[in-house]
Amino acid sequence: MGSKLTSRSTDYSKWYNELVVKADLAENSAVRGCMVIKPYGYAIWEKMQNELDRMFKETGHENAYFPLFVPKSLFEAEEKNAEGFAKECAVVTHYRLKTDPDNPGKLIVDPNAKLEEELVVRPTSEAIIWNTYRGWVQSYRDLPIKINQWANVVRWEMRTRLFLRTAEFLWQEGHTAHASKQEALEETLQMQQVYADFAENFMAMPVVKGVKSESERFAGADDTYTIEALMQDGKALQAGTSHFLGQNFAKAFDVKYTSKEGKQEHVWSTSWGVSTRLIGGLIMTHSDDHGLVLPPKLAPIQVAIVPIYRTEEQLEAIRAKVNEISSELKAKGISVKFDDRDTYKPGWKFAEYELKGVPVRVAIGARDLENGTLEIARRDTLVKQSYQQEEAVTVIEGLLEEIQENLLNKALEYRKEHTTYVESFEEFKEAIENKGGFVAAHWDGTEETEDKIKEITKATIRCIPLAFEEEQGLCVFSGKPSNKRVLFAKAY
Amino acid sequence: MGSKLTSRSTDYSKWYNELVVKADLAENSAVRGCMVIKPYGYAIWEKMQNELDRMFKETGHENAYFPLFVPKSLFEAEEKNAEGFAKECAVVTHYRLKTDPDNPGKLIVDPNAKLEEELVVRPTSEAIIWNTYRGWVQSYRDLPIKINQWANVVRWEMRTRLFLRTAEFLWQEGHTAHASKQEALEETLQMQQVYADFAENFMAMPVVKGVKSESERFAGADDTYTIEALMQDGKALQAGTSHFLGQNFAKAFDVKYTSKEGKQEHVWSTSWGVSTRLIGGLIMTHSDDHGLVLPPKLAPIQVAIVPIYRTEEQLEAIRAKVNEISSELKAKGISVKFDDRDTYKPGWKFAEYELKGVPVRVAIGARDLENGTLEIARRDTLVKQSYQQEEAVTVIEGLLEEIQENLLNKALEYRKEHTTYVESFEEFKEAIENKGGFVAAHWDGTEETEDKIKEITKATIRCIPLAFEEEQGLCVFSGKPSNKRVLFAKAY
Repeated sequence: MGSKLTSRSTDYSKWYNELVVKADLAENSAVRGCMVIKPYGYAIWEKMQNELDRMFKETGHENAYFPLFVPKSLFEAEEKNAEGFAKECAVVTHYRLKTDPDNPGKLIVDPNAKLEEELVVRPTSEAIIWNTYRGWVQSYRDLPIKINQWANVVRWEMRTRLFLRTAEFLWQEGHTAHASKQEALEETLQMQQVYADFAENFMAMPVVKGVKSESERFAGADDTYTIEALMQDGKALQAGTSHFLGQNFAKAFDVKYTSKEGKQEHVWSTSWGVSTRLIGGLIMTHSDDHGLVLPPKLAPIQVAIVPIYRTEEQLEAIRAKVNEISSELKAKGISVKFDDRDTYKPGWKFAEYELKGVPVRVAIGARDLENGTLEIARRDTLVKQSYQQEEAVTVIEGLLEEIQENLLNKALEYRKEHTTYVESFEEFKEAIENKGGFVAAHWDGTEETEDKIKEITKATIRCIPLAFEEEQGLCVFSGKPSNKRVLFAKAY
Repeated sequence: MGSKLTSRSTDYSKWYNELVVKADLAENSAVRGCMVIKPYGYAIWEKMQNELDRMFKETGHENAYFPLFVPKSLFEAEEKNAEGFAKECAVVTHYRLKTDPDNPGKLIVDPNAKLEEELVVRPTSEAIIWNTYRGWVQSYRDLPIKINQWANVVRWEMRTRLFLRTAEFLWQEGHTAHASKQEALEETLQMQQVYADFAENFMAMPVVKGVKSESERFAGADDTYTIEALMQDGKALQAGTSHFLGQNFAKAFDVKYTSKEGKQEHVWSTSWGVSTRLIGGLIMTHSDDHGLVLPPKLAPIQVAIVPIYRTEEQLEAIRAKVNEISSELKAKGISVKFDDRDTYKPGWKFAEYELKGVPVRVAIGARDLENGTLEIARRDTLVKQSYQQEEAVTVIEGLLEEIQENLLNKALEYRKEHTTYVESFEEFKEAIENKGGFVAAHWDGTEETEDKIKEITKATIRCIPLAFEEEQGLCVFSGKPSNKRVLFAKAY
């Protein structure tokens, strides 16, 4: 398994980068800021996609596909959105290469193949989709439209990190159109809830549901609803957002419908997305100095079985027993890998499955066969225990549930310990600086204060939590009156 | 349902374009040559993806994801491949837009944000993938690599048609690396067989497995294996290809491994892909002048149930009965839509499901409730028949299988009728011109003859069928000796 991981306490960021690469999740590519998602990392993404896609369909959404490119004139139609993304757009200007006359075997961009209008590689698809919806909507009967798209998008980020911030990433983007403001708002909140449920029930990653302050809003939205998670280093991660877009895009693209009463009205809209960034969040919520820790519900391999043997005969006897147990596990929908490779030793395999975060590891040797036993190790606590073979399936099934639950509880506990209520800016700075995590503080509601706090502490308003009650107080920074706390944190 | 479709005999091409749009499969977008795949069309693609993905995994492949962009210097490394695709590449040259100083609210490409090296939007991913594999392969233990990617690609085609040829399309591309030539060849043939099985068993679209002539090969391949289908207008459709790439990419990207014997060897490789083009093939294989005809195994809705009622009470009584039948169907994995919309009349709905190719349509009215009957219509033959309600589930289940089979048999029959063995160029021209379909003819094996035949007849060599036996003969064009027939056709 090569050299050991840097420990989290030594250098969290280095630990993360090493872990992503060593656990075979992803690596940097030859293209600046773009990653290669390796099969093991992609298998986690597929598990996420399956669950999310099911949840989207259960809430009445359908998938579709819109073009990768957005003509510049469409891109600039919704001005705030355009302004928000203009600085990070990859732009296609030509449609042909030709042989370099000065350099045989090399190619140059053909100057005669310049596009009349440049094409932006989508950083998000509101523009191309709303331009399409115009043709789809005439009457209230055509509404709502509830479409999701699984796609790649490109944002030319200057500082990138595998999964967390890459120039190209994979995501889903939902784009819905509604006849009323109320319905669009309900959709926005519904999808935030879907994301929160997914994060907690599948990723075992607790999240705070809230709304963004104006300065942190999606460009072009009237309101951005977010789910915010807390990583082990005390930094927050925006894990998913659901935007109430008002009539902004409908107005920019002239999408109107005739109401039941025969009136022409602009359509109301939402958009919402989560991305491969979730894999970064998953890693940083649970993993440890030994490697990845995966919640069973998203683990590509839930159970790894390692035989310990000297002779080919012993291996065959072990294999026969393992086949029995595996087929029972598989019948229960549990994924099992029997690792009988003879090119690696058992100890190497143990370390590999630890590094790769396989929730349950089973070891079975020649002596176990005699005794009717096997050894089961759980990845979350690293506890190993010997069991009777006949109880193995029941034990493993129970363990997978227990690990899923334990990971969520640990993360909830960590968040509880790292959420600090402060009443003064001294306390605020102390908490952000020395303890990390979320800081719940009164804020006067101005962008000015928000900016100054950020300048001094690097903490930003992660969200105004939906669960926070109104409460009279004074802004920790300006001393002005405030009627609600908001959550601050340093963030990814 | 709007106006009627143009009939196939009037104008096949117009029929196709109208059908794609009217059946809500796809439409042209604001981006030249790029399509919007609408939910109903995308649902067919999802069904195709699910089956193919399962087949790929069953044959030992894993999914991964590689960057959208290919730096120009990598793109040009495999010269034949680069040459083959250079003329149709979308090229990213800049990474930022900025406000147009002369036009407030408009954006221009920021000239200060020119990329040092241009990025090609992948037309296919061999270059970026083989550049990555170099880092993954050291020893024979690292082989084989069997990876597939679901992705979008861009080829700047000048003449585009929905699904059949679009500037951006969705596909899967498999890229495998092997220690031996033999293993790579076996992989190439295995994947051609997977494609053929999928086409015949799921799409009900018979295909000829063959190998391409040199001039029709994938740029950079030593051999291209293909599956060729025949459309109702007598034109062939290349439906999937599997390439034996030899050591071409391994050499271009310097990918070597140390063999068991300790020798440094270049790796052998394959690539293989099918795309959203398959949807075009599906449409043109089965559909008729009433609209789409879908094989049950790929139909997003397999059974549509339309209630015929006057009063709300009648509707409720029908609904209760339909719920019984539906839940039995759903328990058998059959997808059912009960269309109780009150905004459309039954006749309109019948026409809609006909247009959309739903395999089985059920109508149930108030009188049926009294008689314990219902009416079942099958889309392929348009035959309607009354049945007892208690036999409905069995009848429908049987019908779905029968329709799947019938569609394949009809297509096989059509192909049989439209495959002509010719011995002279007169016969050849006659068959291509007046009858259409495949023409099996002796060919002298030269590109010169191939080109001339194409010039005169527009027919190309679709493939040299694997099933054709050696047989002495004379080239229909040059009269030179030939030892095997090949298949010619006009093609999409």
